[in-house]
Amino acid sequence: MSEEEPVGPMTADECWEMLRTQEFGRLAYHLGSEVHIAPINYAVEHDTLLFRTAEGSKLLAVEMNPDVAFEIDEFDEHHASSVIVRGTARHLGEDEEHRAENVPLRPWVPTLKYDVVEIRPTAITGRRFELARPWLHLIPEA
Amino acid sequence: MSEEEPVGPMTADECWEMLRTQEFGRLAYHLGSEVHIAPINYAVEHDTLLFRTAEGSKLLAVEMNPDVAFEIDEFDEHHASSVIVRGTARHLGEDEEHRAENVPLRPWVPTLKYDVVEIRPTAITGRRFELARPWLHLIPEA
Repeated sequence: MSEEEPVGPMTADECWEMLRTQEFGRLAYHLGSEVHIAPINYAVEHDTLLFRTAEGSKLLAVEMNPDVAFEIDEFDEHHASSVIVRGTARHLGEDEEHRAENVPLRPWVPTLKYDVVEIRPTAITGRRFELARPWLHLIPEA
Repeated sequence: MSEEEPVGPMTADECWEMLRTQEFGRLAYHLGSEVHIAPINYAVEHDTLLFRTAEGSKLLAVEMNPDVAFEIDEFDEHHASSVIVRGTARHLGEDEEHRAENVPLRPWVPTLKYDVVEIRPTAITGRRFELARPWLHLIPEA
């Protein structure tokens, strides 16, 4: 991107701050040779993300290939922000599952989600966009 | 998922309706052996999705491996919906770029985005969730 573009990078601290203030994002993962994406609830624990899952395919997928990407975003009329985490997923064993008890990992849907997966980031990037959506300001013709 | 869970599938028509009413989603794609995710503006054209990009890596990535996944979602206090498209991406040639002129493919950020990519869905799934987020209703102790 060229310098005059209305897009700016976020610092690592700003990315973590946004990660801590949200609890809903999208996980992209490999399922065999396919890429899949799913909405998840997550929480930050120290320098990792944790989420719960009961879905066999998601759990099996990250156990077969731990390479994942994760995204959160927020926007209003004038600005948008997006934080992207690339990392490695790991299914936590019973001896580590308690880590999910110490963070606000609150599933929005009260289904049974026993398994806890950790995402250990290898790269975190965030961008802020100034939005130009003139059609939001269009006055309908009389 | 078991039947008593407060999660319901959306019909194909409902998925397309939600796809048509939104213009912002997240694209998951392969970049070599890695999975990546990026926010994009998109528009529905007939039975495909179109988006523009100027980013070399995203364009190169889908040309190297056209297998992609795409997600949109929306939520309020009580409900959430998520639509996921799995499909095949294709960089449109100059003879087809005009397709992007006929749909409301309005970039939120006024950067130069010449290239048009089509996503041809191979599977579309949508889910509605009834949310149980009791902490939203917690009354702080006096």
